[in-house]
Amino acid sequence: MSTAQVRVTFEPQGRAVYVLPGTKLLEAAGAAGLSVESPCGGKGTCGKCRVQFTHGAPPPGKADRTRFGADPLQAGWRLACQTALTSDAVVFVPSTSLFASSHQIFMEAQRGPAEEVLPAVRKVFVQLSPPSLSDEMPDLMRLEQAVGPVKADLKTLQRFALRLRKGGFSGTAVLTDHHLMDFELGDTTKQCYGVAVDIGTTTLVASLMDLCTGEELAIASSINPQTSFGDDVLSRIMHAASEKGLKDLRHAVVEAISALIDQMCASAGVARDRIYDFTCAGNTTMEHLFCGVDVAPLAVVPFVPAFGRGLVLAAEDVGLKLHPRAAVYVFPVIGGFVGGDTVAGMVATKLAEAKGPVLLVDVGTNGEIVLGHEGQFLAASTAAGPAFEGARIACGMRAAAGAIEKVIIDGDVQMNVIDNARATGICGSGLIDLAAELLTAGVISGGGRLLPPQDLPAGLSEALRRRVVLDADGRVEFVLAEADAHGPRVFLSERDVRELQLATGAIRAGVNILLRRAGLKTDDLQSVLIAGGFGSFIRRSKAQRIGLLPAGLPHERIRYVGNASLNGAKWALLSTRAHDRAETLARKTRHVNLSEDLEFQMEFAEAMLFPE
Amino acid sequence: MSTAQVRVTFEPQGRAVYVLPGTKLLEAAGAAGLSVESPCGGKGTCGKCRVQFTHGAPPPGKADRTRFGADPLQAGWRLACQTALTSDAVVFVPSTSLFASSHQIFMEAQRGPAEEVLPAVRKVFVQLSPPSLSDEMPDLMRLEQAVGPVKADLKTLQRFALRLRKGGFSGTAVLTDHHLMDFELGDTTKQCYGVAVDIGTTTLVASLMDLCTGEELAIASSINPQTSFGDDVLSRIMHAASEKGLKDLRHAVVEAISALIDQMCASAGVARDRIYDFTCAGNTTMEHLFCGVDVAPLAVVPFVPAFGRGLVLAAEDVGLKLHPRAAVYVFPVIGGFVGGDTVAGMVATKLAEAKGPVLLVDVGTNGEIVLGHEGQFLAASTAAGPAFEGARIACGMRAAAGAIEKVIIDGDVQMNVIDNARATGICGSGLIDLAAELLTAGVISGGGRLLPPQDLPAGLSEALRRRVVLDADGRVEFVLAEADAHGPRVFLSERDVRELQLATGAIRAGVNILLRRAGLKTDDLQSVLIAGGFGSFIRRSKAQRIGLLPAGLPHERIRYVGNASLNGAKWALLSTRAHDRAETLARKTRHVNLSEDLEFQMEFAEAMLFPE
Repeated sequence: MSTAQVRVTFEPQGRAVYVLPGTKLLEAAGAAGLSVESPCGGKGTCGKCRVQFTHGAPPPGKADRTRFGADPLQAGWRLACQTALTSDAVVFVPSTSLFASSHQIFMEAQRGPAEEVLPAVRKVFVQLSPPSLSDEMPDLMRLEQAVGPVKADLKTLQRFALRLRKGGFSGTAVLTDHHLMDFELGDTTKQCYGVAVDIGTTTLVASLMDLCTGEELAIASSINPQTSFGDDVLSRIMHAASEKGLKDLRHAVVEAISALIDQMCASAGVARDRIYDFTCAGNTTMEHLFCGVDVAPLAVVPFVPAFGRGLVLAAEDVGLKLHPRAAVYVFPVIGGFVGGDTVAGMVATKLAEAKGPVLLVDVGTNGEIVLGHEGQFLAASTAAGPAFEGARIACGMRAAAGAIEKVIIDGDVQMNVIDNARATGICGSGLIDLAAELLTAGVISGGGRLLPPQDLPAGLSEALRRRVVLDADGRVEFVLAEADAHGPRVFLSERDVRELQLATGAIRAGVNILLRRAGLKTDDLQSVLIAGGFGSFIRRSKAQRIGLLPAGLPHERIRYVGNASLNGAKWALLSTRAHDRAETLARKTRHVNLSEDLEFQMEFAEAMLFPE
Repeated sequence: MSTAQVRVTFEPQGRAVYVLPGTKLLEAAGAAGLSVESPCGGKGTCGKCRVQFTHGAPPPGKADRTRFGADPLQAGWRLACQTALTSDAVVFVPSTSLFASSHQIFMEAQRGPAEEVLPAVRKVFVQLSPPSLSDEMPDLMRLEQAVGPVKADLKTLQRFALRLRKGGFSGTAVLTDHHLMDFELGDTTKQCYGVAVDIGTTTLVASLMDLCTGEELAIASSINPQTSFGDDVLSRIMHAASEKGLKDLRHAVVEAISALIDQMCASAGVARDRIYDFTCAGNTTMEHLFCGVDVAPLAVVPFVPAFGRGLVLAAEDVGLKLHPRAAVYVFPVIGGFVGGDTVAGMVATKLAEAKGPVLLVDVGTNGEIVLGHEGQFLAASTAAGPAFEGARIACGMRAAAGAIEKVIIDGDVQMNVIDNARATGICGSGLIDLAAELLTAGVISGGGRLLPPQDLPAGLSEALRRRVVLDADGRVEFVLAEADAHGPRVFLSERDVRELQLATGAIRAGVNILLRRAGLKTDDLQSVLIAGGFGSFIRRSKAQRIGLLPAGLPHERIRYVGNASLNGAKWALLSTRAHDRAETLARKTRHVNLSEDLEFQMEFAEAMLFPE
């Protein structure tokens, strides 16, 4: 049923994905979780997305020939945005071509001021001169001569002197600020790790980072197990009304994050007690629940969070088994509805440095929107619902193996299934594609109706026509795969289309309100940054087709920036300066409460209709 | 056998002691643990020691008449240094007459810069405007508008929002520095307490302080239970060689301090969780053991401590049940042999501000000596042994009920027993008195021999002669009380005299070495400050008679300053400036290692002889 896919492997990351033939390499990289630089919007003019095929290089295009000389072309260099994949391939992606990566922080650090890369944790290998009768200096002060003033907690103090002697007055001091976290035997300076986590309402994504090199050693994700207590923010707040409920929710998310850390440590061969720093970002409710802080005030006017500024907590208090003295940084929140994930996204995308009006849309269970213009920021949150993460969709699923993540309709349905597996469901990007294609084919009406067989347009192919069926209750379904020995039936329901309309409508309405508040028009937007983990790579034309993105906007102004919340959390691991930036951005961003906005309901109703 | 004693009660402290008739009120106050100001050395010229008899006022003396008018004299005002007690009395001691008291800190603060009184803990009662649609500020930031920037730990954060609402957006913020320790319902600003502890090798003394008023609410002391593992520093170090031994020692002292806190809380009606700060001082080994830090390096050349600067630890880590986020300040140490108790004593006695050469002698299980001159400080420690605390003395005991604390020989023995009880033993000051009196009477020889009956001087009274007996092994004993239905036999043995010689000799030798190092003579000393809990009030002539203090020095230059280590710890509770002073003094004091000093052994041997 689905066309044969091609396999492309990215090095040195070692990630492989299956894509439909003809897929642009830029998109395939996105599907592999690699955000390749493309500031020109994929027009082949900026040359930032250069990659090298080591196997299966397609013939160079015009833009490739303009950009590269004969030798590089021969060596397989191509522009990722201009190159369509036609066969299995292996591609080398230089770290300089990666967007919003930790590597970028290091690159910038080399260009910019030295303090740019400044993890909270410092490891210093010291070799001290042993004490003598003429030098009776106490151990800790002896260490201070090498590393500057330090304060030690009781546990570190208790073993410091012993370890110092065991190591012949040498060893590795682990420092955060002026706190001596530990003193390790031998030279362990290279073993310095941190974990960044995006705490989504539906999905948790964690990254294990090498704090020495900025390298991402592992990434892992799972469903937020709190979903079993309710799939949206409000139902979580309700569940947390009892002390036990709050405890259960906190426990669930902390345990799930612990499991992700275990998984990453195992795959990267890293010991948990060499993880010294932890940063996380989530919406206001998620962050409060992670901390075990009462969320009742977040459900009643005026929706006041317990904390605004970022928190620095003890990992041990939080219940995360990292190094016992590891710190947990929780991103600052903007308001009751716009949380640390948005702030992290603003940090990661350098929203404050954008030229001209810029819009950041983070699509998750809530759709968070930030509009930046002349140093001013407006932010709002819309209850988009978890449709883009596959929840509340009959056959919805996360962007994992078996998920239909791309759909093309060309006479019949062509699908790309993650890991080239048998399709078991649809993830967010597949859902957008499918709805857009069905709208264009006339199978879905502008009002969002999935048309019954008798109302289908005359010119529709027989193959597609056969996929439109009625269920036992007479409701229309569009079938993507029939159940067989290898997997379940996969289909789109009328209700699914309605969920999608709600999600896109809410976001569009929010965008419109913010634009109006700022006195701007859609055309004024110089860039639109789409963030989120709702698939792997957003296809802009499809997103515009269903009305998620403004239709008139040129493609090159739209960029997918990946999981910006996670990227912001990674920045915060690698540079404490990111903490400062987060605090500043959180405080200077004005929170627009859409639920109090009379225009919003009207805008919402209008935005529910798919564009013609 | 003992002369009838008189009872004197001190108000408002409510402390009562029994003393021999003729005892100076200044001395009686010392016996009651009250250090009355007497900068003139008790000559009746400075007028600082004014007190008011409310009952049993003796006739005024010449100095009283010079100092006070007729009305005050009539009202019972007297100079404590000039007034001998002849009958039971009740005396009011104005806080302005107390030396080294917390009150003094407050008095000075009123005279000096405002930041002088600056406990680490601040309580602020706040009444915040509740949030509204036009004011959605997060709770913590709302609080910050009232109290300045704060950081909250997880546990405080978890209940902050709830409590804030329960209190109608009012309550009491408990702050240390920028840390929000807690948020309490209602106005609890007046309930702010701290505990200061002197961790002696033999004796623990604790004080419960009101951090709002500087008042001492309770005081408690006990034997350091570590003595069961060995009565001197070295035997403790040996016991701590095993991990279990170290744990046991740490546990013992922490539990004993906990018991003292319980006792004080009960007597003062203070809840443990309203104790927010804890400071302690002890010698280097005691502080290390309190922290559970390996002490093996303190027993081998070059005797290096694990830490030098003061520590700020979490009470919860230490195992003290105070407020869960209370801090524990451990005084900085000077070297392996001179610890935080000496530093605390230097802070309490303002050694840095003394005019002319000044000597501080802290008499405990170790005798610590500091010589200050022209901004330079030399410090040394001598293993005086626990004789002054009653240990290693046949009938030795702490200065508690039943202890003979004063002895006068006048034909026969007159004794003052603490609490007017039946004598059960001798404490440090009683031991000094007894030895001095027996030396003068010729019962003890200059070499330290307790003379056998046949060698006693011809003129000795029959009453005294009867007290000199031989034990079963033919060793001489001087009997103070025979065993009867009310108590045990109390006596002085030859061995006791030897212990006293060792203790005084070690201290005198140390003083001599330091003087020589500084190029000073005894006469140059402008003040000699005697600290320690080895009795209650040192009688200078007696201390000079046995050679503990230099014989030639005029009395007015010698002052007893009480438990200076505890007083320093109290200062540190009331003012973080004391922390800074402690750090500065600890670092600028040069540690003289007597065990490495070739002259010391000679000096010691010589100082063992009692002065003629």
